[in-house]
Amino acid sequence: MLQTSSELPDFFSRHRALLEQAVAATAARDHWTPYPESPSKSVYGEDAAKNGEAAFQEQLGGHVELAGHPGDGRVSAAETSPYGFELGISYPRVAPDEAVAAALAATGPWRDAGPDTRAGVAAEILARLNAASFEIAHAVQHTTGQAFVMAFQAGGPHAQDRGLEAVAYAWAEQKRHPGAARWSKPQRKGGPQVLDKKFTPVGRGVSLLIACNTFPTWNGYPGLFASLVTGNPVVVKPHPGAVLPLAITVRIAREVLAEAGFDPNLVILAAEEPGGRSAAVLALHPDVRIVDFTGSTEFGDWLEANARQALVYTEKAGLNTVVLDSTDDYRGLLGNLAFSLALYSGQMCTTPQNLLIPRDGITTDQGPRSADEFAADLGTALDKVLGDPARAAGTLGTIVNDGVRDRLEQAASVGRTVRASASVEHPEYPKAVVRTPLIARLDAEGDRGTYTREWFGPVSFVIGTDSTEHSLRILRETVRAHGALTAAVHSTSEPVLDAAELVALDAGVHLSENLTGGVFVNQSAAFSDFHGSAANPAASATLSDPAFVTGRFATLQSRRPAPAEETTDA
Amino acid sequence: MLQTSSELPDFFSRHRALLEQAVAATAARDHWTPYPESPSKSVYGEDAAKNGEAAFQEQLGGHVELAGHPGDGRVSAAETSPYGFELGISYPRVAPDEAVAAALAATGPWRDAGPDTRAGVAAEILARLNAASFEIAHAVQHTTGQAFVMAFQAGGPHAQDRGLEAVAYAWAEQKRHPGAARWSKPQRKGGPQVLDKKFTPVGRGVSLLIACNTFPTWNGYPGLFASLVTGNPVVVKPHPGAVLPLAITVRIAREVLAEAGFDPNLVILAAEEPGGRSAAVLALHPDVRIVDFTGSTEFGDWLEANARQALVYTEKAGLNTVVLDSTDDYRGLLGNLAFSLALYSGQMCTTPQNLLIPRDGITTDQGPRSADEFAADLGTALDKVLGDPARAAGTLGTIVNDGVRDRLEQAASVGRTVRASASVEHPEYPKAVVRTPLIARLDAEGDRGTYTREWFGPVSFVIGTDSTEHSLRILRETVRAHGALTAAVHSTSEPVLDAAELVALDAGVHLSENLTGGVFVNQSAAFSDFHGSAANPAASATLSDPAFVTGRFATLQSRRPAPAEETTDA
Repeated sequence: MLQTSSELPDFFSRHRALLEQAVAATAARDHWTPYPESPSKSVYGEDAAKNGEAAFQEQLGGHVELAGHPGDGRVSAAETSPYGFELGISYPRVAPDEAVAAALAATGPWRDAGPDTRAGVAAEILARLNAASFEIAHAVQHTTGQAFVMAFQAGGPHAQDRGLEAVAYAWAEQKRHPGAARWSKPQRKGGPQVLDKKFTPVGRGVSLLIACNTFPTWNGYPGLFASLVTGNPVVVKPHPGAVLPLAITVRIAREVLAEAGFDPNLVILAAEEPGGRSAAVLALHPDVRIVDFTGSTEFGDWLEANARQALVYTEKAGLNTVVLDSTDDYRGLLGNLAFSLALYSGQMCTTPQNLLIPRDGITTDQGPRSADEFAADLGTALDKVLGDPARAAGTLGTIVNDGVRDRLEQAASVGRTVRASASVEHPEYPKAVVRTPLIARLDAEGDRGTYTREWFGPVSFVIGTDSTEHSLRILRETVRAHGALTAAVHSTSEPVLDAAELVALDAGVHLSENLTGGVFVNQSAAFSDFHGSAANPAASATLSDPAFVTGRFATLQSRRPAPAEETTDA
Repeated sequence: MLQTSSELPDFFSRHRALLEQAVAATAARDHWTPYPESPSKSVYGEDAAKNGEAAFQEQLGGHVELAGHPGDGRVSAAETSPYGFELGISYPRVAPDEAVAAALAATGPWRDAGPDTRAGVAAEILARLNAASFEIAHAVQHTTGQAFVMAFQAGGPHAQDRGLEAVAYAWAEQKRHPGAARWSKPQRKGGPQVLDKKFTPVGRGVSLLIACNTFPTWNGYPGLFASLVTGNPVVVKPHPGAVLPLAITVRIAREVLAEAGFDPNLVILAAEEPGGRSAAVLALHPDVRIVDFTGSTEFGDWLEANARQALVYTEKAGLNTVVLDSTDDYRGLLGNLAFSLALYSGQMCTTPQNLLIPRDGITTDQGPRSADEFAADLGTALDKVLGDPARAAGTLGTIVNDGVRDRLEQAASVGRTVRASASVEHPEYPKAVVRTPLIARLDAEGDRGTYTREWFGPVSFVIGTDSTEHSLRILRETVRAHGALTAAVHSTSEPVLDAAELVALDAGVHLSENLTGGVFVNQSAAFSDFHGSAANPAASATLSDPAFVTGRFATLQSRRPAPAEETTDA
């Protein structure tokens, strides 16, 4: 039941100032966010936490109904909380062809609405997602295994930041050209040639979001919002283990779209059971023209090779690397790095894996430290970070799935284990699988086959090299060949930092230098830090930059002679 | 011999105002050009024409020497003027591996120079190309077969416009983000977290330009300049039949690069004999990361499918279509359309091929005209456009190669020939192959297999349809399936024009409406008209828009804690 246009809310006017601030923030790159990251009552209100949890609990064992959604029947997603219970939630069942057809059928008025209206609708969706941050936080916690505060921040406000950032880029790029212009070319004789021209941004076609298990909203929102704002309908295909956070997102998006007078099928949920193949089927559909994917290198490479009718934006895996040369704050370095490894049990695509250090060691404000001593010190720093069981659980979260657990067990027999992974009992959830990070000592020469693979999860290697120069060479070679989402260096020498910066440019990876305080290499802030670079094999997309949005639409032009009465005086 | 930096010319300061105007022009989309299209003495100087012709003549039968160019030996390109003589010019010989290695070796300082310096160098190259417009005009005329004035305009100033447009987009997109920024995040306790961040645009890698026979500079400059300004070295692979215009371009580019203190191997000429396979070999080289191609659908599709390590920008073939519904200026329509078909013997990627008209005819200010009457009238209009032999040669130019001539002969047996192609004797060049356009009558139902293929050259079809609605349906279907670079409509009805605009948006093609004067559907003006849309199969690139440049570079970031003394007051 569509409303008549006179009754329709004007979301663009409501959010215009925010959108303009967001565009300015992408250019300034200082700290900026409209979505507070603190889950406190003073920010989100007295009852927000309680209501959000209740909203989550009410969905357990139930069915998520989406009014007007295509398809029929139900999908039992078999989501299991890594904290040890079944979610038991079912979702609408829709066949790939039905999803694409419904999305296509919704496109026309969305195209005709123009970039301002689309950006306004997107900003309203984000405002309501922000209001639902507690509900989403519980959904993220119990699908990804993140600890609650992280699930709130990364799954809520930080994901919304990344979504708004994509809205800002998409909106601004569509407005690079005017909606209309008059072209007047002087002639040697007589009056000018005068044409009136129209320019219309037109979406590329149906967009497919293939989301991941660990950060369904944070990694999913940029593609979802970039496609939507550039005029494309979006079919959201969640990971079977993390459907609920995106189901809530789709529900809210559809509510706003319908209120704004559009077909809610501009955003469709394509949930499926574990083991389904609908991601691959959807990705090859001839009308699917954009694919956003976060996940394994194997499936990402398959998409890039096979979904040839589509623009494919991937974030895959890589070898996140730290080069250790010297430091004037050894304790800060160890504490910072230990926390980076422990956070969400190393299950971030940005967690360092390869720690490169000269075998003979580095100079520090605590005296020289050999590679072996550094490895031992890092293990001790981890013990300290994880010393208090309650705080440890809040940092580690849980192991997201059996694949990570199996890999961790395999890593115990690799190189020389310096710090073994251990089980930790969760204070609230006795069935949760909680594991501390493993650190193994490898050598740059002998163990290349081991450290040039990604070991996603709480597995890191202290790798002995000949020298810092050698470390930088390995950084360059391995990241160029295998990719990375993050790189870091610790050095007190400006020439070494300069060399590291050049190597990072060569390798195509963003670089963090001398982080010893409260900022961690695995964190990136929307509107200031880029995530991914599209310049190494780990990702073909950057969250977010103009390249992330420009391919999602074309600016189509029409031109006609200007009315004679308007041109005779020219 | 590189100059020391104190002696280096500051091309950016010299051209900064021009670059800023160019960026503004991309947004305003009114008429704008800094390169006059008139080959007159009052514009280009008393001796420019004479000197340009002499410079061209001096090269005939000689060798083009490029100082410091990689490779050794000579390539005899066997270029033959379509006006009937051998150019007999040889060029440096370079193997694909040598070309790519030399390009790669030149990259570092070019990357480090930054977008301002690169844009300044590009603008200086364009200024010198503009000064060489007469030399280039002769080179274009005698490789493409264009008439002189067209070779001057399209091969000179208009190509330079398209080059500068790409420079403007490339420069602006690299400056969307600052070179450096300070990020300061307030903390609940204590001072803020403060990081200093650097942002560096880094080119994707070696860029390959595979140019075409008919518009080597106009279609080649956008990719060349977009890649160069975004930090990439460019290997220029000309069509074996049209080497000289790009050899002159490369020579000038290398002179400017060297003067600016850079390795001239940032622009390399990879000429080869007819029948060579170096385009394919170069396109698959792992260090070639960008390919710009204009030419056949067959090779363009091959590149898209096989050059997977590269971003591939193609302009291929399509079915340029005109929908005839009604007109209040029938004579203007006929004259305009006849000229569009005759210009350069229809050998433009923008020349209309399929003219869709209701079998029962259209209403005009000259009374109703059936499809058959329209076809006859169009033939008469062509006779009129080509009535004067000297003017006819100036419009038609020559047939560029045997492929076009053979296709034209084949077209004589297709449908019912309404106007046969005829030979015209060229007043200056008796050996020139000059042919007038052929028009055949087809039917929308019976001849689909004929008109859904591209007949590149002076071949057009008047196709009878059921109605204008049917014509629009054919436009939509055939362009979506086979692509088009241009579409046009003639109608006195606003609802029909509106419907045509919607169909064009659906089909992903730019639309010209009611052109009856001195602007032709096959012409597009840089800074105002887009050429190609990347929204239908005829092209994956638009000359030029942000999507044409954003993939050619990545913005890489480094970050480090701000010095303590600068942050304590924050």
